[in-house]
Amino acid sequence: MKLITITTDFGNLNGFTGTMKGVIYGITPDAQIVDITHEIPAQDVRTGSIALWRAVPYFPAGTVHIAVVDPGVGTARRPIAAQLGDQFFVLPDNGLITPMLEDAEAAGKQITIVHLDKPEFWLPSVYTTFHGRDIFAPSGAHLARGVKLEDMGTIISDPVRTPLPKPTQTGQGYQANIIVIDVFGNCSTNLRVSQVPNLAKTTIQIAGKTIEGIVPSYGHRKVGDLVAVTDSEGFVEVAVVNGSAARKYGIQLDDPVEVIFHD
Amino acid sequence: MKLITITTDFGNLNGFTGTMKGVIYGITPDAQIVDITHEIPAQDVRTGSIALWRAVPYFPAGTVHIAVVDPGVGTARRPIAAQLGDQFFVLPDNGLITPMLEDAEAAGKQITIVHLDKPEFWLPSVYTTFHGRDIFAPSGAHLARGVKLEDMGTIISDPVRTPLPKPTQTGQGYQANIIVIDVFGNCSTNLRVSQVPNLAKTTIQIAGKTIEGIVPSYGHRKVGDLVAVTDSEGFVEVAVVNGSAARKYGIQLDDPVEVIFHD
Amino acid sequence: MKLITITTDFGNLNGFTGTMKGVIYGITPDAQIVDITHEIPAQDVRTGSIALWRAVPYFPAGTVHIAVVDPGVGTARRPIAAQLGDQFFVLPDNGLITPMLEDAEAAGKQITIVHLDKPEFWLPSVYTTFHGRDIFAPSGAHLARGVKLEDMGTIISDPVRTPLPKPTQTGQGYQANIIVIDVFGNCSTNLRVSQVPNLAKTTIQIAGKTIEGIVPSYGHRKVGDLVAVTDSEGFVEVAVVNGSAARKYGIQLDDPVEVIFHD
Repeated sequence: MKLITITTDFGNLNGFTGTMKGVIYGITPDAQIVDITHEIPAQDVRTGSIALWRAVPYFPAGTVHIAVVDPGVGTARRPIAAQLGDQFFVLPDNGLITPMLEDAEAAGKQITIVHLDKPEFWLPSVYTTFHGRDIFAPSGAHLARGVKLEDMGTIISDPVRTPLPKPTQTGQGYQANIIVIDVFGNCSTNLRVSQVPNLAKTTIQIAGKTIEGIVPSYGHRKVGDLVAVTDSEGFVEVAVVNGSAARKYGIQLDDPVEVIFHD
Repeated sequence: MKLITITTDFGNLNGFTGTMKGVIYGITPDAQIVDITHEIPAQDVRTGSIALWRAVPYFPAGTVHIAVVDPGVGTARRPIAAQLGDQFFVLPDNGLITPMLEDAEAAGKQITIVHLDKPEFWLPSVYTTFHGRDIFAPSGAHLARGVKLEDMGTIISDPVRTPLPKPTQTGQGYQANIIVIDVFGNCSTNLRVSQVPNLAKTTIQIAGKTIEGIVPSYGHRKVGDLVAVTDSEGFVEVAVVNGSAARKYGIQLDDPVEVIFHD
Repeated sequence: MKLITITTDFGNLNGFTGTMKGVIYGITPDAQIVDITHEIPAQDVRTGSIALWRAVPYFPAGTVHIAVVDPGVGTARRPIAAQLGDQFFVLPDNGLITPMLEDAEAAGKQITIVHLDKPEFWLPSVYTTFHGRDIFAPSGAHLARGVKLEDMGTIISDPVRTPLPKPTQTGQGYQANIIVIDVFGNCSTNLRVSQVPNLAKTTIQIAGKTIEGIVPSYGHRKVGDLVAVTDSEGFVEVAVVNGSAARKYGIQLDDPVEVIFHD
């Protein structure tokens, strides 16, 4: 099995991702293809990078992740492919790779990035409006069927980076930000729970509300309560039990979250 | 081939179901995975159970159905797995299994249910907010690759049940309820057509309207007409020909439907 | 591998397409199934045919495309299957096949169409409300596993056709129409770029606006500009750079587009 994932902002309306899969199966008939999401807001590179970043650690070694959130399609921005540890990536060089790259660097993993500049791995006709189909899908399929990364393009060391905002230390703890709002309205911050010395002795302020303590699960508070928990990737999350924190309190991406440690 | 289905209320926005598939392929590389739906309204266990119930009879023997509509994630509610006849289920013990279990009981099929209480079949780290990824996906994958159900947990006989409303007999026929509204606005009741003695000699009252007769297909009435037909699982359905009965007449889930038999 | 695609107006809410996949895997366990789209507007045969038409050229030889946009389900309209060149189609005889058929005729490809009138290739029970599950899915699965098209039904030569509007020549160029609006709000016309003698010396009028020249890519104009480019299938497209032309200018399907050639 050759496992390939696809993450895009193409939606599911027009058949764009189905077309990419046709290209992939034409090159690598024994691929298995997993959709991460195609509902990234149009041209929102950061949200695309976060969705992929949270999924990647759960895929087996050798998986090829194709990601296309590409406001610069058809311009001079480079198509790139990368090996980060045992995972592979095929995507536009516009910052999409940033959180995976930062994690790989922090963990000391093997990192190789190439500029996909060899048209023999693309479709014969490349339209300027759909590189997902004409460059990224065939490149990912060739990588999955065993072509060496180094043979697919020229090695580069200067990928575009668009780092996520990092929490800043304050006198009392951290000022964090909301970086993910999920379909339930749960709001994840960029502060790792491992940065919090004592979960019970932590106060969180958001949207004019105060939450005392980070609890082990939603079930530790009553339905409808605003609660802080550990999200499924180990970050501090603000949620309403069996409800939507985003809707109930008007929380939006990038909103500040004050995290205060006390005795 | 090992066939696995997934039914959730996770939506397709955040990559949650893609992540579950990464976990599954890591354990069972030769799985085929089918999405039933991920658009169950958040935490609506009953709608989730109905969607799965209507799909299950069309899957081959040995299919493993993973379903996660789980308002109690992270609490003491049990994760369970079940064999009902030749189909397998992996899901939270919150009533999701009810209609499949009732059908299996009515048909005298083999029924085995276990509490998934052996962490060796889970991911090494279990977060309280995402058992779909950390418990249900790996458990389903192990079941699909051939681990025996009885080896995956402790047998139980008291799964939580949340029965669907049943039609009640009246002097003239039945009072039924709308239990499914599909994407076209067609409204299915909980009354089986097999409970209707004479389709032509039946009057249906809903939303202040009266329908004479249950006809063989939409095409037996004019475009725009309110019509009663047999739905695709054998239940009485109310529809507007090439339109939306739900929207046109404001029909909602649980609305009463009077079914009157006459000469 | 046996590759099968599915295109429907079923949405992803009710599990209808998941059920079709259960039927397919029961008949052809080694199938790979690709969703083109299930978000065709309800009963919009033309939009369904266009979505499939744009995807088909990118699938490998032997792919079986099942398409179900079927306002006449349960009536006398025929279920049909077709071989057009090296691609196969299984769909209702309501015009869905038209653009693929016209292309195959124009290219002189092999064309064989049969009326699927042999119930041994259907499910044992056929409900009048869900031929996607009971007729089209099993027929497509049998075709994919190797049953000969000619053995699945009676050859016909009169499929229903619903041709797309064609651009009409004017004294100065063409009057075209918008036939696709994608998820980004990009608006494709029915005029092929190959019909335009000089891309730079072309004026396009739409929604009271005038665009000078068809440029090689979005990146040739500023963010927010209304621009004309070649779409990913070779047609003239009107777009707003990193924005939505449809939303910004209220462009809708079928809107006229004046294309004027000049010196």
